[in-house]
Amino acid sequence: MNMRAKKITVLGDGGWGTALSILLAKKGVSVNLWSAFPENADDINKNKENTRFLSGFSLPENIIAMSDIREAVSNAATIVVAIPSHFLRRSIKKIKQVDFSGRLILSVVKGIENDTFKRPSEIIKQELGVPAVAVLSGPTIANEVARGLPAGCVIACEDTAAAKRLQAVFITERFRVYTSGDVAGVELGGALKNIIAIASGISDGLALGSNAKAALFTRGLVEMKRLAIFMGADPETLNGLSGIGDLVTTCISPYSRNRRVGQDIARGKRLPDILNNMEMVAEGVETSRSVYSISRKNGIDMPINEQVYEVLFKGKDPRATIMELMLRESKPE
Amino acid sequence: MNMRAKKITVLGDGGWGTALSILLAKKGVSVNLWSAFPENADDINKNKENTRFLSGFSLPENIIAMSDIREAVSNAATIVVAIPSHFLRRSIKKIKQVDFSGRLILSVVKGIENDTFKRPSEIIKQELGVPAVAVLSGPTIANEVARGLPAGCVIACEDTAAAKRLQAVFITERFRVYTSGDVAGVELGGALKNIIAIASGISDGLALGSNAKAALFTRGLVEMKRLAIFMGADPETLNGLSGIGDLVTTCISPYSRNRRVGQDIARGKRLPDILNNMEMVAEGVETSRSVYSISRKNGIDMPINEQVYEVLFKGKDPRATIMELMLRESKPE
Repeated sequence: MNMRAKKITVLGDGGWGTALSILLAKKGVSVNLWSAFPENADDINKNKENTRFLSGFSLPENIIAMSDIREAVSNAATIVVAIPSHFLRRSIKKIKQVDFSGRLILSVVKGIENDTFKRPSEIIKQELGVPAVAVLSGPTIANEVARGLPAGCVIACEDTAAAKRLQAVFITERFRVYTSGDVAGVELGGALKNIIAIASGISDGLALGSNAKAALFTRGLVEMKRLAIFMGADPETLNGLSGIGDLVTTCISPYSRNRRVGQDIARGKRLPDILNNMEMVAEGVETSRSVYSISRKNGIDMPINEQVYEVLFKGKDPRATIMELMLRESKPE
Repeated sequence: MNMRAKKITVLGDGGWGTALSILLAKKGVSVNLWSAFPENADDINKNKENTRFLSGFSLPENIIAMSDIREAVSNAATIVVAIPSHFLRRSIKKIKQVDFSGRLILSVVKGIENDTFKRPSEIIKQELGVPAVAVLSGPTIANEVARGLPAGCVIACEDTAAAKRLQAVFITERFRVYTSGDVAGVELGGALKNIIAIASGISDGLALGSNAKAALFTRGLVEMKRLAIFMGADPETLNGLSGIGDLVTTCISPYSRNRRVGQDIARGKRLPDILNNMEMVAEGVETSRSVYSISRKNGIDMPINEQVYEVLFKGKDPRATIMELMLRESKPE
């Protein structure tokens, strides 16, 4: 158990998984970084850089990349899950038989599963049969965290003691970690904000200015809270770092892939072309599809998501969507 | 009274007063645009452009500039007050004797008076002895509204019927107007967000990235709500267009003067030099001073404002302030 205590496994070598590995390694932790691509794992170990998903950062010696997921999790006290949401369930199934008792599992995945409408932590819990899965979310653009710029995030867990242990694992002078008991609220903020980021990108692509973007942001947050309430979260959580905070950074950062999807589509590109040209995943695209189904089925008023969905999947003219949003009946706020 | 009905006076020929005049004039309203500077009024009437405060926009024929404030208000059914907050009381005193019964007064001023801690609408009410003064606030960068880009705002008044009449006066297809009964909440959002915009500019000036800015934004909103509650407002109003919405646009827009003050100070300029080089007023500077007094006197925890105040007025090193904010004890959010 002592060897375990100092070892953390990060599942997923995307930008965020890699940035968190760097942060942990710099704190002296030994990190197993699992990649779904054997050639990537080799490349990382050879070059001490993740050239594919987070280039420009040299990885400390105590990060070891590996491509066998069972080997990667075998001797770690803490497992950080950083797998894109639509690969999550099939990846996690591969470690079903491993004994996770006494270990901490933390998800940093942002999305909602298409058909089941499950949050990532629910999928992990279900597949692994563990009692609790913590989540970490907030305004944490990977590139900036890897550069050591200041950032703050929230770790939520039903098990308060586990949240505090994880807080101690991740906190640094520049990476501030708050704790929360509202797993659903923290997780939904991270997933839903990607939809508003796409809308915000559409607005940018049409050069509609800061006022329009601010209005989308504000009304978008109202929509996010509506769905969060329906899904059992505390809407107040959406006012925190994992809601508003993450929404701000995604809407303004040049690194936001979801914002870029919206921008490209507003400039006339086709969705399949945009996604084919992206090395990484824009989670908001699939989340928008899930949210469209949930909101339709349950009569939840989510006009921004509805417009984003129709632009992404129904070929609707982006300019028409914005005008439709603006022309909704004026009423008390 | 019929002549009056079609006439609106805008007091103040700054960027926002001018943009609102253009919006109203394009709706067919005759506008008296009062300037405190006779040479500006002449210039506007001659060139049909406000070259000093909102250059690049030709003013419709039905805007008449004037520099006699009593003449300007004499025959208008609606008075829009768009005077910088620290000139407000002395300007309004000049029209004390005018009969305002049956007329609508709307303030778009954003600030808090230094010694009295009064909001602009309270100053106007007090000086003119009128029963109600409405306020308009929200994410409305003047330049964008003048260009006809989409925007949304909130008009609040204790008198619901007056709020609805004003909504009809201002609304267009691209300028959406919501109504509210929370005058204090709407007005405080507009004033307090300027302080966070300065902090956000400091963060930009130090190139700290989107994550830090998002954290400042989120924690800043918490502070704004704390003061709003103390001053009798509904904190929920701060989640709307006049709170979060205005905060977003001020933190991201290249036109935000308050953000620019923060940015310049972080890059080593001195406050008096920055302010001397600005044609227009950065309201957040004085608001920060007012808020510093209020929060100190009443034990309201406002760490971001405290740091902004110390950078602006006490020569504190901007980099030290950000680290101080980041290093505050980690706790439940």
